[in-house]
Amino acid sequence: MSDIDFRRATLADVPAIVALMADDYLGARRESPDDLPLYQEAFARVEQDPGQFLVVGERDGTVLATAHLTFIPGLSRRGATRAIVEAVRVSSTERGAGLGSALMHWVIAECRSRGCDLLQLTSDNTRLEAHRFYQKLGFAQSHAGFKYEL
Amino acid sequence: MSDIDFRRATLADVPAIVALMADDYLGARRESPDDLPLYQEAFARVEQDPGQFLVVGERDGTVLATAHLTFIPGLSRRGATRAIVEAVRVSSTERGAGLGSALMHWVIAECRSRGCDLLQLTSDNTRLEAHRFYQKLGFAQSHAGFKYEL
Repeated sequence: MSDIDFRRATLADVPAIVALMADDYLGARRESPDDLPLYQEAFARVEQDPGQFLVVGERDGTVLATAHLTFIPGLSRRGATRAIVEAVRVSSTERGAGLGSALMHWVIAECRSRGCDLLQLTSDNTRLEAHRFYQKLGFAQSHAGFKYEL
Repeated sequence: MSDIDFRRATLADVPAIVALMADDYLGARRESPDDLPLYQEAFARVEQDPGQFLVVGERDGTVLATAHLTFIPGLSRRGATRAIVEAVRVSSTERGAGLGSALMHWVIAECRSRGCDLLQLTSDNTRLEAHRFYQKLGFAQSHAGFKYEL
């Protein structure tokens, strides 16, 4: 995966990121790739917030993977800083080729370099393949994840 | 629960918050209530970050409950803003009396007033009573939660 460049996303990456999010059996129902201004406004909110880091992985100028990192200071666990990774997506043309692992290893290194103590994520109960993927990377499936639509 | 006042935590609340976190079978192993400067430094990082909102619930000047809210802008789900709630704790002297529900209803209202679309949390796999509590409040146990120690 030495041909993949991981970097902070820019506004120009938004269409490719949205396409990756929609190219997914859950995302297909949740996203509206044709409504780009909606995502561009959301990108502006992400970019203005120093606690957010939207990552893309590209090869030869084509975005093939993305993840959204959030850095959270807190009191618990002796004042530990947590990182949360959400919206991890790899192009369907690249799955099984190690790009997801390369992305997550990059994410882990980035969180370490920022002094985070813990990296956490939630994955839909139906994504059993993703669960195995995270376990293989060394994540402990120690928690239940709850969501409440506001 | 009309006698409970929920508000943003101040530096003066830190000892009480740490005591609540340590008064828990998992927190007892993870926290060091005697090392207060550690938590005071962490509180300063939380306070400086506009995406963080550390809540306390008090009665007659005594802190009896706490929760840590984080507000996260993002691209997924059509540019949804998420809230995460972590470190939800209620004094052991108050458990079963509705204080936890009052706290969570306050949290839900606060997240709505800030325009959040989704509230999410993770709870240790062993906290089965907490899982029932969140389900009763209307949370869907839809995800698996993974943690990686950095």
